[in-house]
Amino acid sequence: MTALKNESPSGSPSLSQTELRPIVRSQLQLLLEANNLPEAKALLAPAQPADIAEAIEDLPNPLQAIAFRLLPKDEAIEVYEYLDLEVQQSLIEEFRGQDVLDIVEQMSPDDRARLFDELPAKVVTRLLSQLSPKERGATALLLGYEPGTAGRIMTPEYISLEEGWDATQALAHIRSLARASEMIYYLYVTDSSRRLTGILSLRDLVVAQPEQTIGDIMVREVVSVQTDTAQEDVARLIQRYDFLALPVVDAERRLVGIVTVDDVLDVLEAEATKEIYQLGGVQSGDASYFQTNLLTVAQRRVVWLLVLLITNTGTSAVIRSQQDVLEQVVALTAFIPLLIGTGGNVGAQSSTVIIRGLNTDELRSTKPWAVIGREAIAGAFLGIMLGAVVLLWAYLLQGNLVVAIAVGTSLVSISVLASVAGSSLPFLFQRLGFDPALMSAPFITTFVDVLGVMIYLNVARLILKL
Amino acid sequence: MTALKNESPSGSPSLSQTELRPIVRSQLQLLLEANNLPEAKALLAPAQPADIAEAIEDLPNPLQAIAFRLLPKDEAIEVYEYLDLEVQQSLIEEFRGQDVLDIVEQMSPDDRARLFDELPAKVVTRLLSQLSPKERGATALLLGYEPGTAGRIMTPEYISLEEGWDATQALAHIRSLARASEMIYYLYVTDSSRRLTGILSLRDLVVAQPEQTIGDIMVREVVSVQTDTAQEDVARLIQRYDFLALPVVDAERRLVGIVTVDDVLDVLEAEATKEIYQLGGVQSGDASYFQTNLLTVAQRRVVWLLVLLITNTGTSAVIRSQQDVLEQVVALTAFIPLLIGTGGNVGAQSSTVIIRGLNTDELRSTKPWAVIGREAIAGAFLGIMLGAVVLLWAYLLQGNLVVAIAVGTSLVSISVLASVAGSSLPFLFQRLGFDPALMSAPFITTFVDVLGVMIYLNVARLILKL
Repeated sequence: MTALKNESPSGSPSLSQTELRPIVRSQLQLLLEANNLPEAKALLAPAQPADIAEAIEDLPNPLQAIAFRLLPKDEAIEVYEYLDLEVQQSLIEEFRGQDVLDIVEQMSPDDRARLFDELPAKVVTRLLSQLSPKERGATALLLGYEPGTAGRIMTPEYISLEEGWDATQALAHIRSLARASEMIYYLYVTDSSRRLTGILSLRDLVVAQPEQTIGDIMVREVVSVQTDTAQEDVARLIQRYDFLALPVVDAERRLVGIVTVDDVLDVLEAEATKEIYQLGGVQSGDASYFQTNLLTVAQRRVVWLLVLLITNTGTSAVIRSQQDVLEQVVALTAFIPLLIGTGGNVGAQSSTVIIRGLNTDELRSTKPWAVIGREAIAGAFLGIMLGAVVLLWAYLLQGNLVVAIAVGTSLVSISVLASVAGSSLPFLFQRLGFDPALMSAPFITTFVDVLGVMIYLNVARLILKL
Repeated sequence: MTALKNESPSGSPSLSQTELRPIVRSQLQLLLEANNLPEAKALLAPAQPADIAEAIEDLPNPLQAIAFRLLPKDEAIEVYEYLDLEVQQSLIEEFRGQDVLDIVEQMSPDDRARLFDELPAKVVTRLLSQLSPKERGATALLLGYEPGTAGRIMTPEYISLEEGWDATQALAHIRSLARASEMIYYLYVTDSSRRLTGILSLRDLVVAQPEQTIGDIMVREVVSVQTDTAQEDVARLIQRYDFLALPVVDAERRLVGIVTVDDVLDVLEAEATKEIYQLGGVQSGDASYFQTNLLTVAQRRVVWLLVLLITNTGTSAVIRSQQDVLEQVVALTAFIPLLIGTGGNVGAQSSTVIIRGLNTDELRSTKPWAVIGREAIAGAFLGIMLGAVVLLWAYLLQGNLVVAIAVGTSLVSISVLASVAGSSLPFLFQRLGFDPALMSAPFITTFVDVLGVMIYLNVARLILKL
């Protein structure tokens, strides 16, 4: 759950009376501290569940339970589903017996499965045993699938119809289930052994003639996923087809649940975060980075840094082996960081666009060679422009034309090399079955460091005729 | 529009007969080349519009129009909306007169506005003048708003109801409009001057008693945005509240359109790409990076590179001013790239998590000082671990303990400095009103280069007692 608080320059969203602004939130805390519960209740009444949840999260721990108890029962469940897992857990511990059960029983099965993942096993066992058989079955079903799969993020609360029913019967059925179902706008048609045979939307049903049968109206070509399909693939399918939900079937094509578009929005955000972290050389975990303890944070980062450090020892070895050049013309040293730094930046740009292109499937039908060639030409362009600037700067700084020429020409070659490495290594990694994002900016930068130093010192040796 | 073709190891989505697999696609091309149109038609019939669009995009240019003409009229319009802008344009040029008009007239207004943005002004004027007055009005309305705002991505094809109607009347009204509206699951209630007074879902209406009035059922606290609200704010609101659509009102609170969740999925993907490009030091544009010509590509990248290059000239200046140390102990040179490279990587990790935290609003309620302090401690941790490794490596490589100690201790300080710079500069930039993503990995890396060299050479001077 994330909050919207961006002050965008082009006009902040008009949320009218519905959003709890920061000032109102601190007022909520004051009212609760003064034990003025009727006023606090009145303050919360017109707000959206997501906003109430955020206001409760911001309260000091002991007040959270008090504020939560002020909510009408129906709303309490909705608000609870929006709370951070941490706050959900602490409220569960705060409440006892029937209170807890009322909430947990009413949660949607996918949210409940997510909460149960985080609770101590003992609490989960106790809660599960107290749920009604129907809810217990739904939760146990979801908990049986791997996290990150369609089975885990689906909800079993869909509406299924039979082919033989007419539109009037179907509408009556929907009316009776509408309150308990998470999604009533897509309707799923199954046969006697629960196999998915068709799909129709509430829109199709509403415009149908009352006596038409479901079999007549429904679409038989159904896009579905399996319980073990990765959640990011589910998200991409929903995004591709502009669906509001996608049915999930088991190995026998029996319908077991649906994934709804609101969950997909969260999956896409989580995927973007994972990708961005990888690009920055940070291993991403399940919990939020900012809620993880420092030791875990250091752990998640040190592995990458060590790999890069070991790669970078190559630069020391190269310089060491070429030390005679540097001893003769110490002036060359001044431009090492500038050359490899710029090379790293050029390479980072290439790898960023290629990795993003691979991850969004934009590069699916393009030949790798065409892309790498294009990047090489771009690298040459950039290298010539930057090389000219650097040549001038080097000459001004040292007054040594030979050194300046060595620096300028090296930059052109480093720039081409960096573009080629930055664009080809992600392809290579994908081909080998690894995640292309492993070839991210930090890795490319380090790789270019090693080769850049080698190029520079050899070019210098050549030009200086040593 | 992006395609799903990931071969995920955890189970590829079961698309049954609906997806046009690559082999079928090449078959489509063969059939078209052989002019066997009935078979080609049969091949396309069971597929989803998004898949047909992709198959058409993959065909050579002259075959695209032939394949497109095989589609039944209703489906042709849907497929057309899924095509890339480029292909849409070339088809428009291929078709003449009535054909074009039939398609353009039936497109949803937001997709049409997006197409018109790309077409030559002359074509747009001609097309606009030929549209029916209603469709012309809708398109002109959208074209009047800035790209990137709610006004531009909204659709005017929503259903509005009146408070005084009863549920039966409302359902009849919906039935009559269901075909022409993009979203019938959320219904908007307006007064006589088109002001938005309430909202209800089709679900609420379906479960209502036939004689209940809309005024009784509707919710009066409506979350809405204005026409000039930035599209990413609209996306975040829909994500936050799990809505299927969000109403857009003008300055007088009159309802002018709605933004639907499927458009939001595309906005979120575009935003993620923009953020990732910024982090990689690539300026993002409107068109896809891979469809842009090389000169534009070089342009988008060279500005950043020049800024970084100029910053990096600082390292040359620092080294130049400390050249006496290097002249006496050339061995020091070997570790410059390793030290600043590692420092850059540590800084890139910090800035990545902070920028992502700021962009997803996860860091909204956290104090900057707490976060920066945390990063500093993490940096010290990492520095000590890496410093120990590097000290050992430096000693093994050079056999000079004093140099090794200078390298190790420098790395600890550089690592702390890099974490602090990486975490504090994004906050500073946000405070100053700039985009925090400008303080991305390439910038932090370059910044650390300059300071890193300064620290290293001064530490060496101190330890070597020069």
